[in-house]
Amino acid sequence: MTGHRDSDFIRACHSEPVRRIPVWFMRQAGRSLPEYREIRGPGTILRAIANPDLATEITLQPVRRYGVDAAILYSDIVTPVHGIGFGVFIEPGVGPVTEQPFTSADDLKRLRPLEPETDTPYVLETVRNLVEELTVPLIAFAGAPFTVASYLIEGRPSRTYARTKTLMHTDEKLWNQLVDRLADLAIASLVSQVEAGASALQLFDSWAGALSPADYERFVMPASQKVLSAVASLGVPRIHFGVNTGELLPLIAAAGADVVGVDWRTPLDTARTRIPSGTALQGNLDPALVVAGWEATRPAALELLERGSGGGHIFNLGHGVLPESNPEVLERLVSLVHAHPVENPR
Amino acid sequence: MTGHRDSDFIRACHSEPVRRIPVWFMRQAGRSLPEYREIRGPGTILRAIANPDLATEITLQPVRRYGVDAAILYSDIVTPVHGIGFGVFIEPGVGPVTEQPFTSADDLKRLRPLEPETDTPYVLETVRNLVEELTVPLIAFAGAPFTVASYLIEGRPSRTYARTKTLMHTDEKLWNQLVDRLADLAIASLVSQVEAGASALQLFDSWAGALSPADYERFVMPASQKVLSAVASLGVPRIHFGVNTGELLPLIAAAGADVVGVDWRTPLDTARTRIPSGTALQGNLDPALVVAGWEATRPAALELLERGSGGGHIFNLGHGVLPESNPEVLERLVSLVHAHPVENPR
Repeated sequence: MTGHRDSDFIRACHSEPVRRIPVWFMRQAGRSLPEYREIRGPGTILRAIANPDLATEITLQPVRRYGVDAAILYSDIVTPVHGIGFGVFIEPGVGPVTEQPFTSADDLKRLRPLEPETDTPYVLETVRNLVEELTVPLIAFAGAPFTVASYLIEGRPSRTYARTKTLMHTDEKLWNQLVDRLADLAIASLVSQVEAGASALQLFDSWAGALSPADYERFVMPASQKVLSAVASLGVPRIHFGVNTGELLPLIAAAGADVVGVDWRTPLDTARTRIPSGTALQGNLDPALVVAGWEATRPAALELLERGSGGGHIFNLGHGVLPESNPEVLERLVSLVHAHPVENPR
Repeated sequence: MTGHRDSDFIRACHSEPVRRIPVWFMRQAGRSLPEYREIRGPGTILRAIANPDLATEITLQPVRRYGVDAAILYSDIVTPVHGIGFGVFIEPGVGPVTEQPFTSADDLKRLRPLEPETDTPYVLETVRNLVEELTVPLIAFAGAPFTVASYLIEGRPSRTYARTKTLMHTDEKLWNQLVDRLADLAIASLVSQVEAGASALQLFDSWAGALSPADYERFVMPASQKVLSAVASLGVPRIHFGVNTGELLPLIAAAGADVVGVDWRTPLDTARTRIPSGTALQGNLDPALVVAGWEATRPAALELLERGSGGGHIFNLGHGVLPESNPEVLERLVSLVHAHPVENPR
């Protein structure tokens, strides 16, 4: 186990010179791939995640097909809370659904600490399998406290996060207890994945961009900071990602990221001005352009390669691959990125 | 009919000194008000809009209750396309639904010009009623070409706008024809509302923030610019609004706005740096804070009043009032804003 310290992906995470711009895609594994649809079988994603042979194969598929520079563990934001039995499920076509949403201090009892080897042994078995098989770095996967909390509180995907925001504003003590427990879950999960061999990690705070900077700083940042500082000593790069986070980028970086993920709304050169030098960027092609096809993807990809230059850059989409994407477009995109002349940071 | 040229609302729109900070709320009329739920009756919002007595009363209710500085016509983004018979309906709990989505040049035939007096006579009757009754300015209402197009193309509310983006990127000619027709609809509707007595107008491009700045500038801005320049000579202030538009603010202002609406993600003082001086700002309290209650609303409102100072500012939420809001919180908010010492722009 080398940690892939010399790979372009890990080097870019540390804003070090690279041979080629590294590229991977959020949700590169999954419904956009025919080979995935073939083997996925019935049941929800949580069932597939709980089957290490299947989860291993699903994680490997896009690495084989695309030649991307990193694999991302096939997992879900709710895997740990599901693992400790909070009662979170995935409703097809809807997303995570919580049967009894989090409403009061009593519900804290339903959030005991995660023991990765007994609560989610399949995750670690999958990681160990993958580390055996892969020749590229594996990225560990965890949901950030705010985004997990929003699923537990709202009960189902929300557009407004009004219940979540109401809890944080009306019972700050309970809110802090909740996100503190969720921080501990994320820490336990990430530490176990890295100890099992993952070479990097990504903290998904997908919906943090629903918050004003003031609310993010007060109610969310401390818990994310707790996670990111607890895993700093593991020695693997930490990617911190959310969508709609243009105004939050300085705070997301300050929470302790080696790499900040950015969606397509913020041009990379603009994003660069909002984070400290020495912090790398990951992103940020609009996933809808991949659906639109190669003629839409190519010029936008070339433009963003220019905007990303002048610092560490990991090419990615600004959010996950959409299920209706044509894998051929992503194949060509990897080739385009890899063929692009590298302008290394000075 | 005075045009209310000396009202604080109209003065703030022109970045002129005011006596009190003007305030109104997007979706101030509607489900959050018990008096609305009492009179609304069965059927969708489009049916209520088509009943001038009802629409007049619904528009007036929040003006009476809150003492806001402006009324907004009770209407919907799809009113004109519905009026010309495109086949758009409102599905309760879902939003606008298009039975036969826009897919090809043939569908352009379904988008004939709007004749406001015959296609949507009820809109003009409502406006005329309101102008008789109101002592505050009435804001005319129209959906911007992109946002209306997204409803016609997606068929129902979308999270990704992948079909809309696919059309713009794969058939730019057809896309331009579509948004050009939708621009003409918006122009016809706005002109007729202002000629019937409205004193200001708001162009709702609610979902424009789904786009990268490059895509907005190329595919959306020209059509919005067409609308906003066509209505410039009417002599009423033009408010240009969308959510998630932090990075688009310079373009949204450049499209021809006297006032730029901003959501809560972008602090007003940050927004101010992205628009020309002399352009006013409208916003931007997180509507979820109103749901959370007065203790959450008050400090955030005071902070944003400070951030909004130094230029024209119309206090509003960053998006519409949520149905679960307590009207008492909005009442107190209006008092707070009106009692706030004014720091006029120099």
